[in-house]
Formats: sequence, C-alpha cells, structure tokens
Amino acid sequence: MLYFATGNKNKFQEAKRILAAEGVTIRHFSFSHTEIRSDRLEEIAVDAAAAAYARLKKPVFVEDSGLFIDALRGFPGTYSAWTEGKLGYRGILKLMKGIRNRKAYFGTTIALATSKGIRIFRGRCNGRMALRANGKQGFGYDPIFVPAGHRQTFAQSISLKNKLSHRYKSLLALVRHLKNMRIRL
Amino acid sequence: MLYFATGNKNKFQEAKRILAAEGVTIRHFSFSHTEIRSDRLEEIAVDAAAAAYARLKKPVFVEDSGLFIDALRGFPGTYSAWTEGKLGYRGILKLMKGIRNRKAYFGTTIALATSKGIRIFRGRCNGRMALRANGKQGFGYDPIFVPAGHRQTFAQSISLKNKLSHRYKSLLALVRHLKNMRIRL
Repeated sequence: MLYFATGNKNKFQEAKRILAAEGVTIRHFSFSHTEIRSDRLEEIAVDAAAAAYARLKKPVFVEDSGLFIDALRGFPGTYSAWTEGKLGYRGILKLMKGIRNRKAYFGTTIALATSKGIRIFRGRCNGRMALRANGKQGFGYDPIFVPAGHRQTFAQSISLKNKLSHRYKSLLALVRHLKNMRIRL
Repeated sequence: MLYFATGNKNKFQEAKRILAAEGVTIRHFSFSHTEIRSDRLEEIAVDAAAAAYARLKKPVFVEDSGLFIDALRGFPGTYSAWTEGKLGYRGILKLMKGIRNRKAYFGTTIALATSKGIRIFRGRCNGRMALRANGKQGFGYDPIFVPAGHRQTFAQSISLKNKLSHRYKSLLALVRHLKNMRIRL
C-alpha cells in the first residue's frame, strides 16, 4: 500500500482520483510536520518525506507546490499558499501592475520515500499572469494564471487545469515510475 | 562567555556594539542552521537557539525579526528578509497603494539558551508604512517605515532607529535579564 502524507484533505482527494484512474490505490497518512524553510520545493519535499517515512515505515509520498513569477524573482514560490492567505491573488495582481514580463510557472515536486531511499518527481506548467482575474473555478491563484498556449485562466476552465496542471504531471511521473519498477505496494 | 549565533555578520556587529555599551561582551558563533517554517518569530528563534546550544554547549542566543503590516494580515512577517530580496521595499509600497490603514510594527524575538533551558526576550517598534520612500540610511524596509510619534522614516534618521528599534529593545531586555540573574557568562 502507498500512502500520501498531507495535512490537506483536498490534495489527498484530488491525488486519489487521479491515481485511481491509473490503477494505483493510495491511503491518506494524516501528517503534521514542521516544514523546513527553503526556496526549493525539492528540499522541503525530501525533508517531509523522510520524516513521514520515519514515522510510518511504509512507502509514502509528499508533495509541495508553488507559483514562480519571473518578474518577481520567483515570488511567491515555496511560500505560495502562505502568501495567498495574506495577500490573496489580488495582491499578486497589484504587484504585477505595469509589469510587461508576465511569465510564470506552477511547479510541483513529489518526494517518494521507500525502504530504498527517496525519489523525486516533478511537474511543471508554464504560463503567464493574467492582467485581471477571470473565472470562478479552482482555488488559490487559478483566476490569474493562464497556461501557455491558451487564453483562459485555470479558473475559467477546470478541465484545462486538470489536464495541464503541475500536480497532475507530477502524479503521472510517479505512476510511470511505479509501473516501470513494477513496485508492488 | 555569551555567544550570538547568526549567519549575518552585520547583525553580530550591531549587537556587539549595543551590548558592549551595557558591559556585556559577546562572541560570534558562525552558525548555519535550516530554519523551520513558522508564522511566529518565537518558534523560529527557540528552534534555532536549541540547535545552536546543542552544537556549542555554551550560553548562546539567536534573534529573529520581521515587519508585520496590519492591512496585509501581518505580511511579510517572519518572511520579511526573504520578501525584501524578492520584491524590495518598492513591492511593499505597491501592495500598500490605496490602503488607508498604514499601521505596522517591527518585532524582534531573542531566544537565549543556557544549561537552564531557553528564555525569550522581545522588542517591538510600532509605526506606520510611509506613502513613499524617504531616506538613504539603514537597510531593508527602513525607507518606508515611520516609527509612532515621529514623521521621519528610519532611513532618514538612523539615530532615531538606533534608539527605537525592535532589535535594540530586545537586546536591552536580554541585558536586564542577565543583570538581574547576576549570570556570569
């Protein structure tokens, strides 16, 4: 059995649904862990996965995601959820006012801990920051993020988000690994 | 002997000067530690002081500071230095544009670790966010912070800053404790 360690039930439900479609069953490991402070998703995920494995002693993964805006030197990055709670997406729109370089990406890093050590899987979705908010679906920065090659924000088309999202891609990379390795969990 | 554990040489020099005037001599413990992620200065300082003491086995203190802006729910708070590196004080001015509630404070928490455990000392400087940047002294958010009861920013009057600063007050609280306890370090 494979566990997903997260304090966020919505993240778990989303991952469960995506992985079930690929034939992988997961269980929730309700996990509270003091995260380390780092600019890098990898460092945070690896630290948390190691802590989860030490506690659970069974195959377990964690994920960490963030929005990285080019013109803001990667802000809000690994502090995206925290920043969203303080400033909302409106704060980001305000910071981006008058800035022509709108490039940004969403990134997810999954760290899988097993008896063999820790492996990393990444997902990334390139795009740009919208000039104004659009759409009501999704959450967080979805109303102001437009994936590359598209004209709608994630919040205007949740089906687009589900296909393109950083989190989805990182979960698929995890699934590919499990299948290649023929790991029985 | 009392040690100040910090990776920041400027912080050490400033503290050394302030404490020397009070008859307290400190040494630098050059210390690299992966900070925990927390909204609270106390948690970060206590964790770091415990780690420093575990390494050094001698009385040692650490400090953590931040700018807490009322209208931004305490942003940038414990992430002040990181945020300043990404957005600069200009980013904060932009976020505060059109916001009437300009209240903010600078806070410092010192954690002192000795064989008797950990003690906390706080310093706080209330004030408001300026409408525009002023002054060239100091660093960080100094050009946009006006202490309560004054009209100039910290960057316009470094002598004002030295008298009123959160860091100065927290160091004085530490000194008072050391004198009251008649601790010989």
